[in-house]
Amino acid sequence: MKFRINKTVLTDAVSQVSKAVSQKTTVPILTGIKAVLDEQGLYLTGSNSDITIQVFVPIQDKDQKQIIVEKTGSIVLPGRVFSDIIRKLPGNRVEWEVSETNQIIICSEQARFELIGLDADEYPSLPHISTHQSFRIHTNLLHTMIRQTHFAVSADEAKMVLTGVLWQLSSGKLTFTATDGHRLAKREAQIEGANDFTLTNIIVPGKSMSELAKTIQDLEEQVDIQVADNQLLVKTDRIQFYTRLIEGKYPETSDFIPKDWKTEVVGSTRELIQSIDRALLINRASHDHVVKWTIKEGNIEITSVSQEIGKVTEQIHTQVDGSPMEISFNPRYMMEALRSIDREEVLIQFKGTMAPFTIQPKEYPDTLYLILPIRTHS
Amino acid sequence: MKFRINKTVLTDAVSQVSKAVSQKTTVPILTGIKAVLDEQGLYLTGSNSDITIQVFVPIQDKDQKQIIVEKTGSIVLPGRVFSDIIRKLPGNRVEWEVSETNQIIICSEQARFELIGLDADEYPSLPHISTHQSFRIHTNLLHTMIRQTHFAVSADEAKMVLTGVLWQLSSGKLTFTATDGHRLAKREAQIEGANDFTLTNIIVPGKSMSELAKTIQDLEEQVDIQVADNQLLVKTDRIQFYTRLIEGKYPETSDFIPKDWKTEVVGSTRELIQSIDRALLINRASHDHVVKWTIKEGNIEITSVSQEIGKVTEQIHTQVDGSPMEISFNPRYMMEALRSIDREEVLIQFKGTMAPFTIQPKEYPDTLYLILPIRTHS
Repeated sequence: MKFRINKTVLTDAVSQVSKAVSQKTTVPILTGIKAVLDEQGLYLTGSNSDITIQVFVPIQDKDQKQIIVEKTGSIVLPGRVFSDIIRKLPGNRVEWEVSETNQIIICSEQARFELIGLDADEYPSLPHISTHQSFRIHTNLLHTMIRQTHFAVSADEAKMVLTGVLWQLSSGKLTFTATDGHRLAKREAQIEGANDFTLTNIIVPGKSMSELAKTIQDLEEQVDIQVADNQLLVKTDRIQFYTRLIEGKYPETSDFIPKDWKTEVVGSTRELIQSIDRALLINRASHDHVVKWTIKEGNIEITSVSQEIGKVTEQIHTQVDGSPMEISFNPRYMMEALRSIDREEVLIQFKGTMAPFTIQPKEYPDTLYLILPIRTHS
Repeated sequence: MKFRINKTVLTDAVSQVSKAVSQKTTVPILTGIKAVLDEQGLYLTGSNSDITIQVFVPIQDKDQKQIIVEKTGSIVLPGRVFSDIIRKLPGNRVEWEVSETNQIIICSEQARFELIGLDADEYPSLPHISTHQSFRIHTNLLHTMIRQTHFAVSADEAKMVLTGVLWQLSSGKLTFTATDGHRLAKREAQIEGANDFTLTNIIVPGKSMSELAKTIQDLEEQVDIQVADNQLLVKTDRIQFYTRLIEGKYPETSDFIPKDWKTEVVGSTRELIQSIDRALLINRASHDHVVKWTIKEGNIEITSVSQEIGKVTEQIHTQVDGSPMEISFNPRYMMEALRSIDREEVLIQFKGTMAPFTIQPKEYPDTLYLILPIRTHS
């Protein structure tokens, strides 16, 4: 294995793959990055127990020659050190040579690194996806859908299925659902050309969802989604992102969502966020995360009290329809829901003091948050 | 106590004082900020066991009315929560009222906070400095002198005096010295009008030095330095920064500094930093922090080896006078010395493979670093 490669291109590829490289040394080879060079280009692979990312660097990109191959081959690089080294190399043309004994020599200008590599045959092979069924989605939409749901997954490993985001696809409508039992986040989107493809119980680990969001955040393109029994693959020309799926049956959640309401509030997303942010100042220190909303004609009075610190009250001007009411809830849940809404105004609907209430961007019913209120003694 | 104050002015003052506020709750009152309002303005004080910072906000600043006083008074505020609240208040005019029962009401636009305060009489009084001797130094110079020395203090609490920076003043020359027994940093500067003032054994805790650097970093003015038996005071019109001193006798260090040399190197500070940075990549993971320099005519070859990771070698073009030699040292010490030098070129002088060597900005002998080499078996 011997070649020269453009440093910027290599740095970008290594940084993408590094997101998947295992930090744990329980399976030592997974702390490495697998590199394979053939006549098409360089393939880098990083993996941990949940996700696998493969990045492809073609020999030629448009008019730009990115790699000059002298000899093809493969190696497993020491992951973390390698990505630091590449970033800090002088110059912009990296020479890379691997000996028969898996010794790697990386040269760039006056700097020369000799690294100890491992045999590429020892690296696990990519997950096998045995399906020809797939659908396409734009990275911008996928990124938004992840951002609007993944925060609501459960952190409790005992409720395994709830630690993932449920993907459903039916009649061309893709739905992401996440819940931890106290609140729920749901986002739907119409997907073109996906009418023949149905997904009913695909549960992607919450952590994989965040890593996927990071992987696609700088991309502006359609990606291909393939699903097999225990793996989901997100695929572009250059990047393949695999994640394992969570086994088990995701609970039915549509019954939780109230069908009617008694009080309806329309308010400024930004003003509500800022008032919750200030209420959290009082709550944060005292651990009893409760905020009370007193909803009257034309405004909400927000109150938060802590025995040790004191009290905050604030009036927020809103449009209110229906009966006045009081409701108490965890301000962190409200904050996360409001922050994931990109619209200026939100619609919040209440059925009663003890019933779950919903938050939606006004006029955008494709996004829905549900929060269970907290019973208080006041 | 009742007044209105400009929010920006209050935020700045609170953020300065907060640097000193204790995070530990062993002395509960020190987790608070003392506020005193009189006819001149508002005094805020924060303190922990090492440092005390008092910030003064005058009623009027130039043409700008900053505070409108209705009733003078004093209170101790809940420190951390208060500084978060002030930062996140809406509007730019804060109303502040304290009741007879130490309840604090903070209002700004639609937000209203009620906080539980403590009696100001319970807060410890400022350290007493019983001297009229003082000298003046510009904040820029003081900040640079701190930055160039404080990193070399010992982290070992058993060597108490070495955990501080030694301040000496004699014939108008101020000297800062820091050493941990393996390396030394020393910076001298001529101070105008300080000829009659002598300091011989003033030891300021390393942590106080970094906090002082943060406190003065945005100031552009002369500050007044006063020293008493166990306290040092740095004073501007608005800020008073007190630190305790470390008791004990600082060791004599001038004998360690070699008077002659056998090999002299002049090189680019930036190129040397970058090569050490790359050598550290190999060292970092392996914990045996050693880098070897092979000094020959016209260049240095830097080598760093780790059993697990591999090896890095690099040629750095430098001007070399005297005999060729090899020397091994801790690259972290070299890095910290080089990074604190603001000049393009450094002068490094060696007496022998096992003798301490010195690093100085070329043509600026007022700054000096000394590093003890490491004995190696190669």
